[in-house]
Amino acid sequence: MNRFLPLLLLISGALCVAQSGSIPAPTNTPGQEYPRILPDHSLIFRIKAPDAQNVQVQMGKTYDMTKDADGVWSVTVPPQVVGFHYYSLVIDGATVSDPASMSFFGANKMSSGIEVPESDADAAYYTVQDVPHGEVRQFRYYSKVTETWRRAFVYTPPGYDNGVTRYPVLYLQHGGGEDEHGWVIQGKADIILDNLIAEKKAVPMIIVMDKGYAVAADKKPYVQAPGEPVDMNRAFSLLAFEKVMISDLIPAIDRSYRTIPDRDHRAMAGLSMGGAQTFYIVLNNLDKFAYLGGFSGVPGGNGGPVINTKTDFGGVLADADVFNKRMKLAWFGIGTEEPGTMSQGMQAFREAITKAGIKYVYYESPGTSHEWLTWRRDLKEFTPRLFKEIK
Amino acid sequence: MNRFLPLLLLISGALCVAQSGSIPAPTNTPGQEYPRILPDHSLIFRIKAPDAQNVQVQMGKTYDMTKDADGVWSVTVPPQVVGFHYYSLVIDGATVSDPASMSFFGANKMSSGIEVPESDADAAYYTVQDVPHGEVRQFRYYSKVTETWRRAFVYTPPGYDNGVTRYPVLYLQHGGGEDEHGWVIQGKADIILDNLIAEKKAVPMIIVMDKGYAVAADKKPYVQAPGEPVDMNRAFSLLAFEKVMISDLIPAIDRSYRTIPDRDHRAMAGLSMGGAQTFYIVLNNLDKFAYLGGFSGVPGGNGGPVINTKTDFGGVLADADVFNKRMKLAWFGIGTEEPGTMSQGMQAFREAITKAGIKYVYYESPGTSHEWLTWRRDLKEFTPRLFKEIK
Repeated sequence: MNRFLPLLLLISGALCVAQSGSIPAPTNTPGQEYPRILPDHSLIFRIKAPDAQNVQVQMGKTYDMTKDADGVWSVTVPPQVVGFHYYSLVIDGATVSDPASMSFFGANKMSSGIEVPESDADAAYYTVQDVPHGEVRQFRYYSKVTETWRRAFVYTPPGYDNGVTRYPVLYLQHGGGEDEHGWVIQGKADIILDNLIAEKKAVPMIIVMDKGYAVAADKKPYVQAPGEPVDMNRAFSLLAFEKVMISDLIPAIDRSYRTIPDRDHRAMAGLSMGGAQTFYIVLNNLDKFAYLGGFSGVPGGNGGPVINTKTDFGGVLADADVFNKRMKLAWFGIGTEEPGTMSQGMQAFREAITKAGIKYVYYESPGTSHEWLTWRRDLKEFTPRLFKEIK
Repeated sequence: MNRFLPLLLLISGALCVAQSGSIPAPTNTPGQEYPRILPDHSLIFRIKAPDAQNVQVQMGKTYDMTKDADGVWSVTVPPQVVGFHYYSLVIDGATVSDPASMSFFGANKMSSGIEVPESDADAAYYTVQDVPHGEVRQFRYYSKVTETWRRAFVYTPPGYDNGVTRYPVLYLQHGGGEDEHGWVIQGKADIILDNLIAEKKAVPMIIVMDKGYAVAADKKPYVQAPGEPVDMNRAFSLLAFEKVMISDLIPAIDRSYRTIPDRDHRAMAGLSMGGAQTFYIVLNNLDKFAYLGGFSGVPGGNGGPVINTKTDFGGVLADADVFNKRMKLAWFGIGTEEPGTMSQGMQAFREAITKAGIKYVYYESPGTSHEWLTWRRDLKEFTPRLFKEIK
């Protein structure tokens, strides 16, 4: 019965007394004591690599590790802001995930992630509580645009089963290099909505989380000519995700779930790349959506050209009065610790739409960076403003 | 708009003409050309590690990689049997996942996996087809045994929503070092059932996939005394998973889903460690289950002591006639290429229950090892024999 011993040892290991003053990261694999988080939010990383010449932690910056007599490399990384941070180890030039951490799909690969925790009180809204729980469901649908079966995750609110109520729908997108797992795993979207709904801060809604990439069946991706600015409308159109959403996903969701299938009960939001996608897709399809949210993500949000509010999107922003009546909510958020290009892009975008007379709500997440804690907070602030007419 | 360029390049990369005679592994991250699979099922692995002294692939055996002038290490691993194989890279003594591969929870960590494909025809039953699809749902429930919220995945068959039908339930467990993701991701359980149900080979059923570990709230894990054989009943009881299933999970499922909540419509099966757990839990709770399946997993299945059919499990196997009437199906399977300890353990177990007059069905998966292709086949063979009285 030797195969059970590792399990028993693992569980015993998890019960060890923690190193004084520090805790294992909540994102570690079961039973792993490292990475550890110190009270000041500095982080200790360790890995056994007895024959390596050079081992580093990459988390924004690069931190050199040092080797002890047992071949274990370690480093204490200076204090980090709270929230979820992707990171990698570099072992003699090979960039790999930390085997002691869970992996998360980001940067187009399985990446290590470390959650630097907030206080329990601050984290309560994305912590599982003793409230009714909705479900996250894996939903398969066929896309005529891509001629493939695709998979989205769908949050259904508590009480969905065995009911007859119809619900409004939020389409919620991940960032560049992430996929449809992002909002479920890193974002904890279902937990946040369960808690908001239990407190009656948000109305029960369905949330659809798809992968924001698509290649049309003709397999012609958008290719930028050398030196030419990226044409976002063209890029997104040819990348086919907009077509997938409008032609395939929304109809499939409306067929398969008890939705209220009209624009007044349909919202779209996304983070980073997904925020920019949201802006383009909603403004190109105002007959389909009445609410939009950009979480650390707007057109030009990372140093691109500022939008032209007179001519972009077929000119729907040109008459602010008309636009403000059609859009029930335009909502934008950013973390105060985001890199300069992000905050400058958001600033330039806000100046452009403010000057054009576009009404919007703006939120800054204090002390957080371009990462999932900012976006969890965004979701918590954004969703209570949706579908307010529903009792 | 620089942040979109990697995405565009990634998609372009994915469209490159494949190296002649080989294909990228289907388990690679999007756009990765390596690992590659040759027609004879030998495998090419690559990783850039310019400063490393020694890089290896660990996949059962250990294979040394060699470095080229660009610092890229590679190796061609001899032909492997079809199916899903966990593997790791060892870089100067550090055991890590391959950044070019998706990661899968196995060996108590995120591990690389490579799927060596069968023919399309052989793989059809676990490939998404144009048939009605069920859902896999994330289900949260509170365990009084562990005093924690737990999460299981629940497959609901096509047509579950908006129906009134009640369904039988299969509880389906992963192997040692894996978790509740195993049957969903590596096992493709939902696809297999969708296809079997569409062909009317299996009746529509609910499948519940939980994590087969638990620590009771008093946090007293089972500890084996030195030199003492592992007491499986005690281990499983104290590890608390049996109690979680019987006291918490099954009642929560029967409250939350349209089940037929009696023993005649409840089955349990599992693979490897989960197969042994199944045998113990079902035999200790014959009032709860009428069907059991052990996929490459039975008591004593990996070199442990052979069961005593007269005295173990309170003697329920001692009178074969009584037992054979109570158990509607006892089903065991193994792959023909499994390691000797596995096949010998299965052989000794079968001899013991055959001698005791226990009726069972036995299946051998041709040409597969102790891995998920064996267990997908087991699921395909096992589930059509369940709940046959349902029209």
